[in-house]
Amino acid sequence: MVLTIFNAVKRVLVGKPFRNDRLAHTLLPKRIALPIFASDALSSVAYAPDEILLTLALAGVSAVAISPWVGLAVMVVLLTVVASYRQNVHAYPSGGGDYEIANVNLGKYAGLTVAAALLVDYVLTVAVSMSSAATYLTTAVPSLHGQQAAIATIGVVILALVNLRGIREAGSVFAVPTYIFMASILGMTAVGIFQAVTGQLGQAPSAAFTIVPQPEFDQGLVGLAGAFLLLRAFSSGAAALTGVEAISNGVPNFKKPKSKNAATTLLLLGVIASAMLAGIIYLANATKVHIVQDPATEFLLNGKPLEEGYIQNPAISQIAQTVFGAGSIPFYIVVAATGVILVFASNTAFNGFPVLGSILAQDGYLPRQLRTRGDRLAFSNGVLALAAGALVLIIAFNADVTKLIQLYIVGVFISFTMSQLGMIRHWGRELKLSKDSAVRLRIIKSRTINTVGFGMTGLVLVIVLITKFTQGAWIALLAMFVLFLIMWSIRAHYDNVAKELAVDEDSSPRALPTRVHAVLLVSHVRKPVLRALAYARASRPSRLDAITVDISPEETEATVADWEKLEIPVPLTVLASPFRETVTPIMEYIKNMRRDSPRDLIVVYIPEYVVGKWWEQLVHNQTALRIKTRLHFEPGVMVASVPWQLKSSEEAKKLQDIQ
Amino acid sequence: MVLTIFNAVKRVLVGKPFRNDRLAHTLLPKRIALPIFASDALSSVAYAPDEILLTLALAGVSAVAISPWVGLAVMVVLLTVVASYRQNVHAYPSGGGDYEIANVNLGKYAGLTVAAALLVDYVLTVAVSMSSAATYLTTAVPSLHGQQAAIATIGVVILALVNLRGIREAGSVFAVPTYIFMASILGMTAVGIFQAVTGQLGQAPSAAFTIVPQPEFDQGLVGLAGAFLLLRAFSSGAAALTGVEAISNGVPNFKKPKSKNAATTLLLLGVIASAMLAGIIYLANATKVHIVQDPATEFLLNGKPLEEGYIQNPAISQIAQTVFGAGSIPFYIVVAATGVILVFASNTAFNGFPVLGSILAQDGYLPRQLRTRGDRLAFSNGVLALAAGALVLIIAFNADVTKLIQLYIVGVFISFTMSQLGMIRHWGRELKLSKDSAVRLRIIKSRTINTVGFGMTGLVLVIVLITKFTQGAWIALLAMFVLFLIMWSIRAHYDNVAKELAVDEDSSPRALPTRVHAVLLVSHVRKPVLRALAYARASRPSRLDAITVDISPEETEATVADWEKLEIPVPLTVLASPFRETVTPIMEYIKNMRRDSPRDLIVVYIPEYVVGKWWEQLVHNQTALRIKTRLHFEPGVMVASVPWQLKSSEEAKKLQDIQ
Repeated sequence: MVLTIFNAVKRVLVGKPFRNDRLAHTLLPKRIALPIFASDALSSVAYAPDEILLTLALAGVSAVAISPWVGLAVMVVLLTVVASYRQNVHAYPSGGGDYEIANVNLGKYAGLTVAAALLVDYVLTVAVSMSSAATYLTTAVPSLHGQQAAIATIGVVILALVNLRGIREAGSVFAVPTYIFMASILGMTAVGIFQAVTGQLGQAPSAAFTIVPQPEFDQGLVGLAGAFLLLRAFSSGAAALTGVEAISNGVPNFKKPKSKNAATTLLLLGVIASAMLAGIIYLANATKVHIVQDPATEFLLNGKPLEEGYIQNPAISQIAQTVFGAGSIPFYIVVAATGVILVFASNTAFNGFPVLGSILAQDGYLPRQLRTRGDRLAFSNGVLALAAGALVLIIAFNADVTKLIQLYIVGVFISFTMSQLGMIRHWGRELKLSKDSAVRLRIIKSRTINTVGFGMTGLVLVIVLITKFTQGAWIALLAMFVLFLIMWSIRAHYDNVAKELAVDEDSSPRALPTRVHAVLLVSHVRKPVLRALAYARASRPSRLDAITVDISPEETEATVADWEKLEIPVPLTVLASPFRETVTPIMEYIKNMRRDSPRDLIVVYIPEYVVGKWWEQLVHNQTALRIKTRLHFEPGVMVASVPWQLKSSEEAKKLQDIQ
Repeated sequence: MVLTIFNAVKRVLVGKPFRNDRLAHTLLPKRIALPIFASDALSSVAYAPDEILLTLALAGVSAVAISPWVGLAVMVVLLTVVASYRQNVHAYPSGGGDYEIANVNLGKYAGLTVAAALLVDYVLTVAVSMSSAATYLTTAVPSLHGQQAAIATIGVVILALVNLRGIREAGSVFAVPTYIFMASILGMTAVGIFQAVTGQLGQAPSAAFTIVPQPEFDQGLVGLAGAFLLLRAFSSGAAALTGVEAISNGVPNFKKPKSKNAATTLLLLGVIASAMLAGIIYLANATKVHIVQDPATEFLLNGKPLEEGYIQNPAISQIAQTVFGAGSIPFYIVVAATGVILVFASNTAFNGFPVLGSILAQDGYLPRQLRTRGDRLAFSNGVLALAAGALVLIIAFNADVTKLIQLYIVGVFISFTMSQLGMIRHWGRELKLSKDSAVRLRIIKSRTINTVGFGMTGLVLVIVLITKFTQGAWIALLAMFVLFLIMWSIRAHYDNVAKELAVDEDSSPRALPTRVHAVLLVSHVRKPVLRALAYARASRPSRLDAITVDISPEETEATVADWEKLEIPVPLTVLASPFRETVTPIMEYIKNMRRDSPRDLIVVYIPEYVVGKWWEQLVHNQTALRIKTRLHFEPGVMVASVPWQLKSSEEAKKLQDIQ
């Protein structure tokens, strides 16, 4: 019933459901696949550079000058990861992704760990991307500044509704804005470099500010503290890698040769992403973009702190202002394209999350009914869970990207590292199997790449853990741990049940109950009862009784009279009910029956009304429902519910059928 | 499932359920019956006098002097109503009360009106009595002053839990405090009168205050305004009548001769109640108790308004202070007894509400499943609904008795008037039937009494409507109207369904479906499936197919293999599922079957797991549930659910069995 209400509400909110599977089986050419799977990875250049800059800024302006080197380091990791995933793509074209790789090669514990990490990541992808998108919106529309949390919230809600409504991105919808984004960023970089060469490149709005280093860094970036800060900057910048794995989950959707095309797309992605990253960091330095965690305390203008209400814009928008001029058309294009790409990035999470959920359900880590991929139920639940999680984070951290980033990266690198380790194992096995030296050579090459990848990502993971744990990463880790436990116990439960229900020697598939004893529940003599009667008789039981409970003498008399008037060839037993209660007398009757002939099968026929409106459920079938629930606890008793479709049910049937 | 969670919570809060019906059939002697049924009526003297005083006070101290006459008028009405209800008791010993009388004699519209009025009254009884009880608590413990709303809320919640837990008042529990209350009030009156005669009677704490009349009454109680105020005072005082009808609902619980004993008890109640009312109003005047709506503006002490934080105590406690001395033992006894009796009064509502609900359900005005009286479901729902309603009122009106009274009385007098009118009709019919002159004489006498009662209560009703409508009565009337509509449409729905389902010529109780076609749903080959298989075969269908949906090839292969290994003598059909979806392929299969042989009966056997814990529901049976729901919309299809009791279900079964 409750569900019915929910559905009613849902129907209003998200309209009639339509098939999600329409596009599920169209295969994508590279030029479409790239934008679809790349938006997540590419969009991270919208916040990664800022994180590098503002972390270094803690040690003053001199430290910021090191940012290109940090960026370089990030790029190296990025390209290594891309190289490694190109191996994954060839080895696992099924699209199982990191979870499958870890599961197959490292065992279920590892698999479950990766699964938990990925689930948390999806949530964070939405939270971070939407918060960042909100920030970009406020740089275009400054009057909205301070409302980021509200904007991000609304964004998530809308995205959730859109996805519930069941719109799968048609490739083209994604392609165009993604390409605009690439073009605008790379274009901006080009123009910027040209200006720099020709000495026309201006200064960023924040260039005039002097940065107040934190007390512990008054000597600049030196000593242990300095090294630590450097690592922190690096691991924040590593946020640029989030979403790289997306393609490896999408291999099945590629045109043939799937793996090869996927690998090429992955390479393209890596090259473009690093180009963008390099460009932005170069221009940020060339135009002296200054970004800090807290402008009020860390910035000085001519020795004095800034006046209230200075709005710090992200690097990309500051660069766009400098290169194209504030308020110019190209400026708005860059900012808009960035905002849109960020929304798309979160949308990819909305597609990926339920899919991963269904895979986990298949392996028995989530409720079974979620396992069918296209399935609405699975999809809706996934979308709702994801949206809820993201909203909690956005509100808890007030849509502060910098804070959210601290939670983000740890999960990403857990799955990176795990899957690389898995791949090493994988190649190891392959190597044992194959004799052909050419093949062996290729395998060894792949394994080397994955080993490097493992070393690199493992190192980053350690750095991230060290530098970010207290910053908030512990929250993400805790969430993963909880998810791990939940999924683990669900699986344990399924396994126990399977053991309990396994067919064993003493379960004999041929043994039949000696006799079938049918019981028909009668309240009033109406069409549904007659139908139930007919069905009961049609199944030719060894014995058939009709019973009615004597709640009110008048009603009972009427019932008996009607029964006789129709000359129904079945005896009608009236059960006394001292306390005018329905369920108990029936249960007593059934239990006695069982006692008298334990080896018989008792079939209880219950006429049921099929209604259309949710409130009709409240006024019908409630007693039937309670009787059924009670009967289910009696072994040797089967409940046969004979539906009668009320006129009002026809409307509901139509809805059912579309679903 | 949701229900299961609810039950879990309930179990914690209210403990294991136990039979309510234990005491249901013990018959009560007058001395026990009086306190049980009287608490509601008697308790109203705790607030009725105050309402008279503070209403009159609007016209200044001179007007207050008229209070005895108002009190007298109220007493007259009280005794008339008592006299009339003595007739009801003789005519309707079944305990149906006003609803039955109106329903039988004036038709269902009238009956439903009374029912709505009574339901609203029960809610207000709880709200008013608990708020008043809270006030008395604060007079005993002044530090609690201002917390009335909170106290009343807690009180209602506790009372609700107690009732959910299923404790029916044993007579004695009620008798003692009620008698203490009577004794203390009447004793206080006696002492007070003695003091007055011997000239030792002191002055009430509020005697020293001069009352500032409202501007429109600076001439005192004159003109139309004066008359209107007088009527308002009277109709507020009429609150003393609330609860008189209680006994007429309780006749079946009396010792034989039921009606006679009930009538005597009713008379006793009337006498005692008026004596208390008279005593309190007399002493209030003798000790110059001054009570106003707003002490801050209406009181002056030596020409100056009172300083902040003056606490105005109700009349009874002021009198007790004067007669026995503030802080004296007897003072506390009086106040405590009054508080306790008020709590009991609300408890009677908690007993009466579900009973009325079950009667209404029987007549099809509320969902059928609520109809069985002793039934837990009916009882719990009633208790919860009542508590919720009362809480809303208490919080909305901040436990202000004076404000709540405005809503209270209208409903009471609607049912009074209706039932008296009904009785006149009743006697009229009786008169036609009987020839015996002695009998006729008695009937005429009764009819006269009820006619007077009708006139009187009708008049009061009009007065109440005029004086209270804008004061808040409209809220109560609105609530009644809404309840009326809801109950009306539920009944209308039931009638329509009855019409739709009535057995007619073209429904032939002998016709049987030509053949029975059984379909067994198989997921994995496990014990539950084998049981379902055995049951299906035991019912010897004309044809039996087992079907399984191919979600994942491996699982399907395994299933087929197991099926063959066990050499099950039934073909297993594998249904393809392109979108890896369970429900749709099955529905398609069934629909095709129907198309091929529309006159066959299709029985779908679904193995179901019976689980113990609520969360297990989440991970089992969900798919089965959805399939069943879909199948119910297909005519000619019957669903046979074959339960398999998991070990974990045993605990749950125990609980089920107690209920």
